[in-house]
Amino acid sequence: MEIKVLKDILNANNQIAEQNRQLLASKHIMAINLMSSPGSGKTTLILRTVEALQDKARIAVIEGDISSRIDAETLSQAGVTTIQINTGGACHLDANMVNSALINLPLDDIDILFIENVGNLICPGGFDLGEYLKVVILSTPEGDDKPHKYPLLFTQASALVVNKTDLLPYVGFDIDTFTRAFKGLNQQAALFAISGLTGEGIEEWGKWVMDSLQKLRKLNP
Amino acid sequence: MEIKVLKDILNANNQIAEQNRQLLASKHIMAINLMSSPGSGKTTLILRTVEALQDKARIAVIEGDISSRIDAETLSQAGVTTIQINTGGACHLDANMVNSALINLPLDDIDILFIENVGNLICPGGFDLGEYLKVVILSTPEGDDKPHKYPLLFTQASALVVNKTDLLPYVGFDIDTFTRAFKGLNQQAALFAISGLTGEGIEEWGKWVMDSLQKLRKLNP
Repeated sequence: MEIKVLKDILNANNQIAEQNRQLLASKHIMAINLMSSPGSGKTTLILRTVEALQDKARIAVIEGDISSRIDAETLSQAGVTTIQINTGGACHLDANMVNSALINLPLDDIDILFIENVGNLICPGGFDLGEYLKVVILSTPEGDDKPHKYPLLFTQASALVVNKTDLLPYVGFDIDTFTRAFKGLNQQAALFAISGLTGEGIEEWGKWVMDSLQKLRKLNP
Repeated sequence: MEIKVLKDILNANNQIAEQNRQLLASKHIMAINLMSSPGSGKTTLILRTVEALQDKARIAVIEGDISSRIDAETLSQAGVTTIQINTGGACHLDANMVNSALINLPLDDIDILFIENVGNLICPGGFDLGEYLKVVILSTPEGDDKPHKYPLLFTQASALVVNKTDLLPYVGFDIDTFTRAFKGLNQQAALFAISGLTGEGIEEWGKWVMDSLQKLRKLNP
């Protein structure tokens, strides 16, 4: 019975995710589900991307947190259109939460929608939100062994962003070891090394985001 | 119905946790449920504690991971008695998993049992394992705002260990801001600042662990 209930929940989620996907496609919006551990740099990556693409794309954010509005306030203060979702304990966003946020966003004025998931390297992998791309961030202090330990999210990612390269001299993160481990799980994903602090690597990442948007628009003119 | 099933699962877990607690008490073992995000330093803290207490207490470890045996191998190579639990996807240990591990450990030869939970700052908070103490680790690169964002684990902790103090010069972690946020949720917990890399603060932490063991033995002679 427990298994049946879980299946029902996932089926219901997938149906709403499909509705989200169709709504986003009808508005020509590229949604990116951004996932990582707590403190890996999701909000900072969004802020840097908004700066890098300010003349190229209109960006909005759905901000997922267990509680608090800290990240949503940071983004709003930077002038980014942001909707907060508090999950009230749940360890991931689901499609229904995202649906509730979508109907409160000015969808005609958005090109790229970042959905910042709850800080968690496990649970978000089970829930399709209707996004176009899944992007995973890993920060260097978390260690280069994480793909082996938490394979699901790494397998699902369309892009993997290694953040906090500025800390490489001080932490035991070997980028070659990490790359081998990651490529063993996922050979298709784009791989970026960035520093949210110094801005290193942001230009290349921003170019990939814009290329992905152009690709989506060719698919769905 | 979903809510009823969740309640049944939690009730069943609590019953097995109580069995674990009684078994551990009968063997005079102090079990510590160690919880944190991925890469905060749970395994390193265990290794440092084993070194610090090597002439004072016999330490064993139950090692929880989604998949992989990386941490269990690290501990075994250091001569620590270790049992691996792979949760196969689940984002936390539960009492039944711990029960299965307990019956495979030499319980008459253990004073302190570390239960290293799955790297996750959310899910482990919902599941009593039968431990005597819950200890939470936060590493400085994760940021000083984490108690506001992930309150449950911080509220439950008997002790909070701030790890990676060696990175303080390079990351935006203000220890006073963190302490205020944490004390706002939890005034009882002991608070330690350590560096798993340099060993800073380990002596004080080890003293607290030994004091806790003495206290338990007075309660349960």
